[in-house]
Amino acid sequence: MSEVTLGSFPLGPVGAGAAGEPLCIFGTGDLGRSLGQRLLQTGYRVVYGSRRPDSCGPVPQGAQVMSHTDAASAANLVFLCVHRDHYDFLQNMAPYLKGKVLVDLSNNLKKNIYPESNAEFLQRLVPGAAVVKGLNTLSAWALQNGQLQGKQTFICGDSAEAKQAVLEVCTRLGLLVLDRGGVGASRELEDFPLQLFPMWRLPLSIALGLSAAFFLYLLIRDVIYGYVEDGKDISFRIMIALPNKVFPIVSLVMLSLCYLPGVIAAFIQLYRGTKYRRFPDWLDCWMLCRKQIGLLALGFALIHVLYLFILPIRYSARHKFISQVVDEMKKNKTTPFYFDKTIAWGTDSLMGLGVLGFFLYVLLGISSLPSVGATLSWREFNFIQVRTAHICASADFITKVTGDTGVQPNSSHNRKCFYFTGRKHRNLVP
Amino acid sequence: MSEVTLGSFPLGPVGAGAAGEPLCIFGTGDLGRSLGQRLLQTGYRVVYGSRRPDSCGPVPQGAQVMSHTDAASAANLVFLCVHRDHYDFLQNMAPYLKGKVLVDLSNNLKKNIYPESNAEFLQRLVPGAAVVKGLNTLSAWALQNGQLQGKQTFICGDSAEAKQAVLEVCTRLGLLVLDRGGVGASRELEDFPLQLFPMWRLPLSIALGLSAAFFLYLLIRDVIYGYVEDGKDISFRIMIALPNKVFPIVSLVMLSLCYLPGVIAAFIQLYRGTKYRRFPDWLDCWMLCRKQIGLLALGFALIHVLYLFILPIRYSARHKFISQVVDEMKKNKTTPFYFDKTIAWGTDSLMGLGVLGFFLYVLLGISSLPSVGATLSWREFNFIQVRTAHICASADFITKVTGDTGVQPNSSHNRKCFYFTGRKHRNLVP
Amino acid sequence: MSEVTLGSFPLGPVGAGAAGEPLCIFGTGDLGRSLGQRLLQTGYRVVYGSRRPDSCGPVPQGAQVMSHTDAASAANLVFLCVHRDHYDFLQNMAPYLKGKVLVDLSNNLKKNIYPESNAEFLQRLVPGAAVVKGLNTLSAWALQNGQLQGKQTFICGDSAEAKQAVLEVCTRLGLLVLDRGGVGASRELEDFPLQLFPMWRLPLSIALGLSAAFFLYLLIRDVIYGYVEDGKDISFRIMIALPNKVFPIVSLVMLSLCYLPGVIAAFIQLYRGTKYRRFPDWLDCWMLCRKQIGLLALGFALIHVLYLFILPIRYSARHKFISQVVDEMKKNKTTPFYFDKTIAWGTDSLMGLGVLGFFLYVLLGISSLPSVGATLSWREFNFIQVRTAHICASADFITKVTGDTGVQPNSSHNRKCFYFTGRKHRNLVP
Repeated sequence: MSEVTLGSFPLGPVGAGAAGEPLCIFGTGDLGRSLGQRLLQTGYRVVYGSRRPDSCGPVPQGAQVMSHTDAASAANLVFLCVHRDHYDFLQNMAPYLKGKVLVDLSNNLKKNIYPESNAEFLQRLVPGAAVVKGLNTLSAWALQNGQLQGKQTFICGDSAEAKQAVLEVCTRLGLLVLDRGGVGASRELEDFPLQLFPMWRLPLSIALGLSAAFFLYLLIRDVIYGYVEDGKDISFRIMIALPNKVFPIVSLVMLSLCYLPGVIAAFIQLYRGTKYRRFPDWLDCWMLCRKQIGLLALGFALIHVLYLFILPIRYSARHKFISQVVDEMKKNKTTPFYFDKTIAWGTDSLMGLGVLGFFLYVLLGISSLPSVGATLSWREFNFIQVRTAHICASADFITKVTGDTGVQPNSSHNRKCFYFTGRKHRNLVP
Repeated sequence: MSEVTLGSFPLGPVGAGAAGEPLCIFGTGDLGRSLGQRLLQTGYRVVYGSRRPDSCGPVPQGAQVMSHTDAASAANLVFLCVHRDHYDFLQNMAPYLKGKVLVDLSNNLKKNIYPESNAEFLQRLVPGAAVVKGLNTLSAWALQNGQLQGKQTFICGDSAEAKQAVLEVCTRLGLLVLDRGGVGASRELEDFPLQLFPMWRLPLSIALGLSAAFFLYLLIRDVIYGYVEDGKDISFRIMIALPNKVFPIVSLVMLSLCYLPGVIAAFIQLYRGTKYRRFPDWLDCWMLCRKQIGLLALGFALIHVLYLFILPIRYSARHKFISQVVDEMKKNKTTPFYFDKTIAWGTDSLMGLGVLGFFLYVLLGISSLPSVGATLSWREFNFIQVRTAHICASADFITKVTGDTGVQPNSSHNRKCFYFTGRKHRNLVP
Repeated sequence: MSEVTLGSFPLGPVGAGAAGEPLCIFGTGDLGRSLGQRLLQTGYRVVYGSRRPDSCGPVPQGAQVMSHTDAASAANLVFLCVHRDHYDFLQNMAPYLKGKVLVDLSNNLKKNIYPESNAEFLQRLVPGAAVVKGLNTLSAWALQNGQLQGKQTFICGDSAEAKQAVLEVCTRLGLLVLDRGGVGASRELEDFPLQLFPMWRLPLSIALGLSAAFFLYLLIRDVIYGYVEDGKDISFRIMIALPNKVFPIVSLVMLSLCYLPGVIAAFIQLYRGTKYRRFPDWLDCWMLCRKQIGLLALGFALIHVLYLFILPIRYSARHKFISQVVDEMKKNKTTPFYFDKTIAWGTDSLMGLGVLGFFLYVLLGISSLPSVGATLSWREFNFIQVRTAHICASADFITKVTGDTGVQPNSSHNRKCFYFTGRKHRNLVP
């Protein structure tokens, strides 16, 4: 590293390549151009290596386009923004790439279509270069639109010095780089961009499975049984009334699934007498997706709340209500309409608790936003996630259980009443 | 750069100015003090240059106050935190600033009030210094209250070494710096803080224009026409019923405007046979504000949902309902109240789909929060924004179109019924 | 710092310890292991110092375990991940630690249980080392799960070079480090993780105090007075109707408390004729927790909205409604039901304004999310927080005041009507 002088004094260290030697990019496609533009914006000099330097289309302003050989000679760091299928030309270029750092940004379209990872293949083609796999989780779009700050990315490679050089460039771009070890880890890195919410799969499957099971059970018990037994067709309840029973149940089950593994883990640790032995795999896996389970529980609760608020606008709810009034009038009652204070207390308590429970639920959700969580100290995070969650879960369970059994002693159908469904209001006129 | 030794071993590189030479700040106003405090907290030494070093008011603890000349001599990096109107003194100081890096943080109150940008003016006053424009998007308040991490800021200047030195300081402060090129870009940088939601202007204008147009149309068709033709005064509907028709329509139009340009762009690319020619300006502009259009669509949908949930509490809704019951009773019906299953199915499906559509809408909104988006891989982001959005749009369109024409064959006013408005419930008692 | 060569060319600077000399961690507990794993992932070499190197349990793959003495000799930076109670062994190790940087990550379980801070105690035990206090706000959990990017942490210490070395490591981990000065600040740093929402205490106390006061007042006035005077038991209203009066009132009071200090501060500055004198302590404290006050106001408004939407599903609301219809019918009215347009206009305007006010409230809340706020320029943030907030506050106050006195001239109980409570609908049938 040289001392950079401006006027008469030394200005301090300047990173590799910045203002000094340029960085080289092979490939002038979307990714290559976006990366080049970003590097230029961050203050680097950039040269492109292209098969046809004269007709390769536009490159970002300030960058030079050369032949592959010239570009490689001008720089020590070469970013490879071409598809694996076009790697062949690199074999001939091996002498020019000797001792250079080759950053492999390539991705595949599917998993396991090649016997070896792209980076290992590249290292075999150009044994004299130090191959670093990385940055492949960044899209051309993200590079172009300034959404890099704090974004986590991974690198791997066998040469510590090469990784260090790449890391410096990445840090300057605002990226947070994690080193995943030798080039052997490159397959794992190449699979990252192909993952589709890996942590969400299990929780989502559980949630959908539970929903389907409860929906089927309720469909049979409420709709089909009623049709077969009484001949009443209440199939229209499939759209709102049934889901509005399913969603809160699944939400509560998910919420308990979110806090159960912590309890199990504590028991296992107490039983074993040490906390330094690994948990069984199933428990590990379960504990790692607790956040996702909790967020799904919140999502289901939100849908339940939306369904709940829309109840009074439904045709069937309004129809039933009018029927009640009409029935009431036909009985020619002269006494004032009886008001049952116990039911009033019961339903109001239920709904009040439900509202507060849902509010705490939302607080939990907000505290799990990355940027909010980052501002909390560990004790604060713990307080919210444990204390608040317990209160929230308790409130919800009380709401659920009370709604299920407690406050409606004179309802013959109270076993059917989950939460605040329209069914509950049948006993309005006793 | 010197090797720093502590005890008997070298500790490695130390950035320019940290722990070694101090940084200089001209100006002890709000901005100067906040910047100084921040630099001190990050581990730099700071000296202030002031016209009246003895009576300049309080400076952050640990900083020294000197005359301008002394302060400039002590440091190589000078942050200029004074207004452009007071730049004259710098002309006399030119000899002391020769070879220094001068960082111009100044902003103007309006665009285009000076013939040249502040930085260019400064460079003309002090030709021997390396002027760097930058950090002017940071407020004194932000500097003081620790909200800098990951914040994007811009610099420009003609000297790469000078920009490099400023970049190092900024990176230490947690900022993400983008280099915008030579000092000629300084006018652009000085205009940044004066911008007020530049990307939101077009979408907001479209949304407000559409709202006004639809509101006027519905006002004439529903309220004024009804008044002139039937002599009925339903002007009270202006407050809730009309907006509750306008908001969902505008929301859906905005949602389609959000996805339309992508389709047009694909067609243009197919027609041209290449994706490397620039889109027409209008399409470029449209595509860049898709996020804003989508968020406005979400905002309008949220207002619609709030209006919808408040419907049953309205005086007019309750009044109409009671009138219905009273009318029903006067007819002395003896047959049980007729329940139309088709309408029950229809309205319930409508509302169920609407709720799910809105839920997906909210998911889209959450995924567009910067900190959430940063944790998604490209494929995941794409999945949410494209797949979910299409389902969401489909659900909403079905809701809309069905609500408009399909499920209410016996309503003579069904062309008037958008979404779940109060009007729809007129056909409750057939 | 040495020039790292790869092949035949210099690769530029490599940070202290990366790829070169290892970092040392004393302690193989949760914290030590998580820190080590993180450092390894970021590309550092790590050696552990342990009392029993052979039986210390698993350490992250790639790290070495040695005796304390060997580990200390191998590295220049020693992270101390043991409890203060076990610091005694360090006294004997003092010769091996001479000239090293000792980073003290320890925390205590309570405040003020030791006469001196852990770091000062450590410095006294090992006077030859440069003690740096810091990173103690990070939990083992956060270190292990990749939530470090942009996270703010603090260091302090008497040696600028030692702090610089620690800072470099932290920056590589993605942390944002603030220097809090000499080792004397270590007590403050050690108290940080023990804080539980320090900025939320005052606002939360005010909100809870106000809620309790208003609830008690309304309880006495509405429920107890009614019981004593008229013998009516409406105690069931405690669960929903009373809270739904308390929450909006407290929300509005909090909102005004949020903007009042700014006005007071402006008056004080005008009165004093300068803005560079400190505000009185109470005002300073008040101004610093404005964000928290505002968010509490939003939270209370959200609960109010949830309570409001649930009103029509309540047993008591439905019962009262049916009673009204039944009463109406018994009067054997033949004229059509009278519709009061003034009330329709009034309640609709009220609710429309309320919805829009709440929507602006939510916008304010979203703009105060850290990651959203970071993307706003100062002028934009100011626009949202001041302009929008004033409109929002105005809309809410109009809603409140109108709901309180204005639009219901024929209600004998209008003084009791806050916001949109069920009570308001009593005058539906005039």
